[in-house]
Amino acid sequence: MPKCFVFTNVIGSFAFDEGLALLGKGEEKGLMQKYSAEKLPRERIKEILHHFKRSDYFSAFREANLAMTRQQIRESVKDDLLIIQAINSLDDMNRAANTLVKRLREWYELYCPEISRKIQDHGKFTEVILKSSREEILKGLKLRKNATMGGELSRADIKAVERLAAEINGIYRLKAEQEKYLEELMKRCCPNVMAITGSLIGAKLISHAGSLERLAGMPSSTVQLLGAEKALFRHVKTGARSPKHGLIVQHTYFTRAKSKDYGRIARLLSDKISIAAKVDYFRGKFVGDMLRRQIEKKLAAITG
Amino acid sequence: MPKCFVFTNVIGSFAFDEGLALLGKGEEKGLMQKYSAEKLPRERIKEILHHFKRSDYFSAFREANLAMTRQQIRESVKDDLLIIQAINSLDDMNRAANTLVKRLREWYELYCPEISRKIQDHGKFTEVILKSSREEILKGLKLRKNATMGGELSRADIKAVERLAAEINGIYRLKAEQEKYLEELMKRCCPNVMAITGSLIGAKLISHAGSLERLAGMPSSTVQLLGAEKALFRHVKTGARSPKHGLIVQHTYFTRAKSKDYGRIARLLSDKISIAAKVDYFRGKFVGDMLRRQIEKKLAAITG
Repeated sequence: MPKCFVFTNVIGSFAFDEGLALLGKGEEKGLMQKYSAEKLPRERIKEILHHFKRSDYFSAFREANLAMTRQQIRESVKDDLLIIQAINSLDDMNRAANTLVKRLREWYELYCPEISRKIQDHGKFTEVILKSSREEILKGLKLRKNATMGGELSRADIKAVERLAAEINGIYRLKAEQEKYLEELMKRCCPNVMAITGSLIGAKLISHAGSLERLAGMPSSTVQLLGAEKALFRHVKTGARSPKHGLIVQHTYFTRAKSKDYGRIARLLSDKISIAAKVDYFRGKFVGDMLRRQIEKKLAAITG
Repeated sequence: MPKCFVFTNVIGSFAFDEGLALLGKGEEKGLMQKYSAEKLPRERIKEILHHFKRSDYFSAFREANLAMTRQQIRESVKDDLLIIQAINSLDDMNRAANTLVKRLREWYELYCPEISRKIQDHGKFTEVILKSSREEILKGLKLRKNATMGGELSRADIKAVERLAAEINGIYRLKAEQEKYLEELMKRCCPNVMAITGSLIGAKLISHAGSLERLAGMPSSTVQLLGAEKALFRHVKTGARSPKHGLIVQHTYFTRAKSKDYGRIARLLSDKISIAAKVDYFRGKFVGDMLRRQIEKKLAAITG
């Protein structure tokens, strides 16, 4: 049985005789039975490429390439991209709710100015004016009914304010839901980073880096300064003091610490985050708890 | 029957004898029966004021003043203040919806990037992805199912995006409701201005002026430039070209006009708005339709 060489590319498998003349496509009936097939040696590939310059192959190449690219783009949608969308949407919702709640306060102050100053928390304020009438609110503040400076509004006027409050309340509820969803994503995609930073800060780090892959590829000194790019470039340009930390400063480790320790805590934390990100990216074992214990031990030594 | 003088202030009515000695408070039993009361002549008021320096009146004065001020503040809440809140809340809702819909588009593009570019209108985009599955959307765009570049998302991932879309849709619905409410307010408070400008531009003018009273007090040249304060001060400071119009340029009269006519249209429009605002403030008859007809007649002469 004569020998033939087989060469495979995106549009199919092709058989060549020993002189490297094209015999036909591998799927053609009976072709492979007549020969003992062998893989085309790598160094001889150049000799057969001219066969594929035939114009009748062109559209087949184009189709196959498009399908492959589409497939690759489809597969590139990974959990870290969803994490970036989820954390940014939380951010956007925060901004939207803040804008609207400021308006709500100003509006409601025409009706009952006393409540707005008493309840600083936006979420609670929104809930109270949704649940209670003005009489109930004033009673709660231990004020007589006619002690309010607010005007007398018609039923329709009050309803308009309350509808805005209901909408804001909806945004707050959605925010709570999306925070849970983000937590699920983080658990699935990067449990190690999450164990150290919590879901919010971890997601912000991934969002700033652009992807988990890029976060995993960063040295810990870069992780330390993620989110402080502006201060960093000011430092480089004008010689101002270099920033000690980026967004990791939102971590609870910093809240009780003295500011003179911030630099050391930031180095310690970003060190471990950088390790955790690498483990997560390469789907390693769960070492998050161990890393956190290591941080907390050293933290006790710094602050204690 | 002897004569007595009566003097009334915020804490009550007081009776004085002819020598201007204090007899007592007017409400005291039987006091008014014994005398024929007469109003204290204006020029003699000074002679009795020292009576009210008695310290036992002080807290009564304080209480009465507080109550009056409270009453005045309460009564100062008029429709135009509600109009200002309503138009600004529409503005804020617009901003919030825009922020969130941009996020929604970016997020949904991970799943089905083809739809986002096809439907430019934010409201329609939000509705379509709420109502239709990806298969239906692709079918509507005449694309095969596997032609999408979007990734395969889990049910939970898709639900998270859809919840955001539902929230945005809620904001759009509320916006439509509040626009109707604003229209009702405008009808009640300033029908004449509304007849010329429509409810949105009219409300913006009142909001910029601060109140209907202040808008009514403005010369038409100020009305013409409301909302163009920045350009006006730049003109005053640097001698740059003076602005021809403020926010009234949003009026439909400008959309079909040539820009060389803008100045004349702005003068014409602000003239009539200024008249309408004065009529509305002093609760005059409805002349809005007449004013609008006058504008449109002159407008035809300008552009025709």
